[in-house]
Amino acid sequence: MPSLIEYKEASAEVRAVYDDIMATRQTDSVNNFWKALANHPPTLRRTWERVKTMMGGEGAIDPLVREMIYIAVSVTNNCTYCIATHTAAARSKGMSEEMFGELMAITGLANETNRLANGYGVEVDEQYRS
Amino acid sequence: MPSLIEYKEASAEVRAVYDDIMATRQTDSVNNFWKALANHPPTLRRTWERVKTMMGGEGAIDPLVREMIYIAVSVTNNCTYCIATHTAAARSKGMSEEMFGELMAITGLANETNRLANGYGVEVDEQYRS
Amino acid sequence: MPSLIEYKEASAEVRAVYDDIMATRQTDSVNNFWKALANHPPTLRRTWERVKTMMGGEGAIDPLVREMIYIAVSVTNNCTYCIATHTAAARSKGMSEEMFGELMAITGLANETNRLANGYGVEVDEQYRS
Amino acid sequence: MPSLIEYKEASAEVRAVYDDIMATRQTDSVNNFWKALANHPPTLRRTWERVKTMMGGEGAIDPLVREMIYIAVSVTNNCTYCIATHTAAARSKGMSEEMFGELMAITGLANETNRLANGYGVEVDEQYRS
Amino acid sequence: MPSLIEYKEASAEVRAVYDDIMATRQTDSVNNFWKALANHPPTLRRTWERVKTMMGGEGAIDPLVREMIYIAVSVTNNCTYCIATHTAAARSKGMSEEMFGELMAITGLANETNRLANGYGVEVDEQYRS
Amino acid sequence: MPSLIEYKEASAEVRAVYDDIMATRQTDSVNNFWKALANHPPTLRRTWERVKTMMGGEGAIDPLVREMIYIAVSVTNNCTYCIATHTAAARSKGMSEEMFGELMAITGLANETNRLANGYGVEVDEQYRS
Repeated sequence: MPSLIEYKEASAEVRAVYDDIMATRQTDSVNNFWKALANHPPTLRRTWERVKTMMGGEGAIDPLVREMIYIAVSVTNNCTYCIATHTAAARSKGMSEEMFGELMAITGLANETNRLANGYGVEVDEQYRS
Repeated sequence: MPSLIEYKEASAEVRAVYDDIMATRQTDSVNNFWKALANHPPTLRRTWERVKTMMGGEGAIDPLVREMIYIAVSVTNNCTYCIATHTAAARSKGMSEEMFGELMAITGLANETNRLANGYGVEVDEQYRS
Repeated sequence: MPSLIEYKEASAEVRAVYDDIMATRQTDSVNNFWKALANHPPTLRRTWERVKTMMGGEGAIDPLVREMIYIAVSVTNNCTYCIATHTAAARSKGMSEEMFGELMAITGLANETNRLANGYGVEVDEQYRS
Repeated sequence: MPSLIEYKEASAEVRAVYDDIMATRQTDSVNNFWKALANHPPTLRRTWERVKTMMGGEGAIDPLVREMIYIAVSVTNNCTYCIATHTAAARSKGMSEEMFGELMAITGLANETNRLANGYGVEVDEQYRS
Repeated sequence: MPSLIEYKEASAEVRAVYDDIMATRQTDSVNNFWKALANHPPTLRRTWERVKTMMGGEGAIDPLVREMIYIAVSVTNNCTYCIATHTAAARSKGMSEEMFGELMAITGLANETNRLANGYGVEVDEQYRS
Repeated sequence: MPSLIEYKEASAEVRAVYDDIMATRQTDSVNNFWKALANHPPTLRRTWERVKTMMGGEGAIDPLVREMIYIAVSVTNNCTYCIATHTAAARSKGMSEEMFGELMAITGLANETNRLANGYGVEVDEQYRS
């Protein structure tokens, strides 16, 4: 595992991203994910810019729903880190235990029925083709 | 690919499911997915019961959001059939082109950042552990 | 898509593999999979040797069960080619429609419950740790 | 990670499922998986009913083979919890070390050849199309 | 499937991206991928900027190697579109048939051994832990 | 988790593989991966032979590039063991921190754009079809 880059040892470029993360999220610490990406500053900067805009900026989808979509993908891919952090984010935005339960159930159902469609080799119905 | 079981050749058990699908969805046809599953009636019945309840029944998550969660998983798994049919369902429930665009962008972002977390072997931050 | 290497244009090295495939399977043709791999003879040879031994040779698991295991993986990964050819192989070894239906149902169930375990972050019970 | 719901704090609905799990499996404890799902009782109930029927009920596929199919999927998806518990279940139903080794080898082979078929873009042979 | 946005019907924002794609790649056409993303201009722009920089800009990894890394992922995920277009790109940058064969073989090997490591639950050796 | 087979308790067949691993890699120890596979000697032998040839033998692709391809797949599949050991191997063959950062970024990008192509159902452009 690569080292985590702490603020005090970070370059100016990395500090600028850390500062923006803390200002945007109104916290005084930075998650391990960003400290790991700081090993490659261009990836840190590009990833943060997109996460900031796409998860927190203006948009047609409600921010809580964005978190639930993110969780559905992370659960499908089994990314423990991503599940833990985005579940916390979703809860802070109002996800109840019941909503999390339904999110898991639908994620499970889709993973199941995706395979039933694969296995039976079902062809797309005429009316759903473009 | 297995044959699709049409209504007129279906057993009473299968017809009962088909009837419920058509009544619930207020259409007079049944999608290929169900006609393929009808090759194994217990799977047809169990799958329909869960899809009916979980995608269309009462719940804490809005039905359109359920479809978007379903699509995020199907896109991650690359299930062409599931993407085509549930995108149509989501559009019929109000998903705009912009919402679909954001759904794809977030699904893509999560698939990307899941791998960054994997590759850098990031450990879950203290505060997100139970 | 790369070209398929037909017998008459194949090198001696490739022909030797094709001959062994046809002799082992008692057919007079070679599937597209092998004709594609023939673009890289070492991969063709190594892959055939392992498929021959592992799917068809002596072993503790019944050959039909081996095919069903292979199908479960291919359905999970959505490999259309692999599903089509190994489903045919399994049917030729005795898999009934009902067995295929159960195989799909269990494959779907596992894909679902894998995600429930991921999403809830369930820790392995004491008694199942080594 | 969500809390695990213990029997003494569980609702009547959850206790009924726990009781059925313990009676069916003839044990006096319930695995962490079920205690986690108990955070969303409908998912607990629906999942248990299907696992009970599909893994343990009547069927055309031998119960040990069902476990091996389940393991093949869980290994492909890298679900540590599912691998640990179902490997234990399979061993209790008679899976030998040699059988487990072959199961792993076939699961690995399928994961490999699935990608060879993907990468070479092999088209399904005429005779395997429906 | 969403419609493909052609140049003549595109907005100024989309045309600017198309112009940059054609100028960068020195061609007079734009691939379907970009025409599809143009349905959501912010995703089109963000994706192109990153592809342009990361696949074609300055870097420590040779551009042909970048394409091979991209192909290895796409083959693992079974993205037919991505495999077709990036295999063409890699060939245009010098990938021989033999190199492609080795790329497929290594991609297959990793997909196989990943599962052997999963299934046997192998713990990381002391010396590889950070 | 199965037991790890140590040299002193290993059969002659297993010892022969261990000896070859240590001689090839010029070390006096064997990784846990091989000690786990030793529970099924044929899988140990076949896997080692292929890893030895494909990762370390003659070939058209540079050995460091082979490791990076292997890492891209392992990160996509989230195989912690494989990521840890092959990242170490790649670093010992000259992979810099910057190269690792770019490898992660490209792996992430491909995982993202694979899903954009899936979700928009993009058809392969005429010129990339064989």
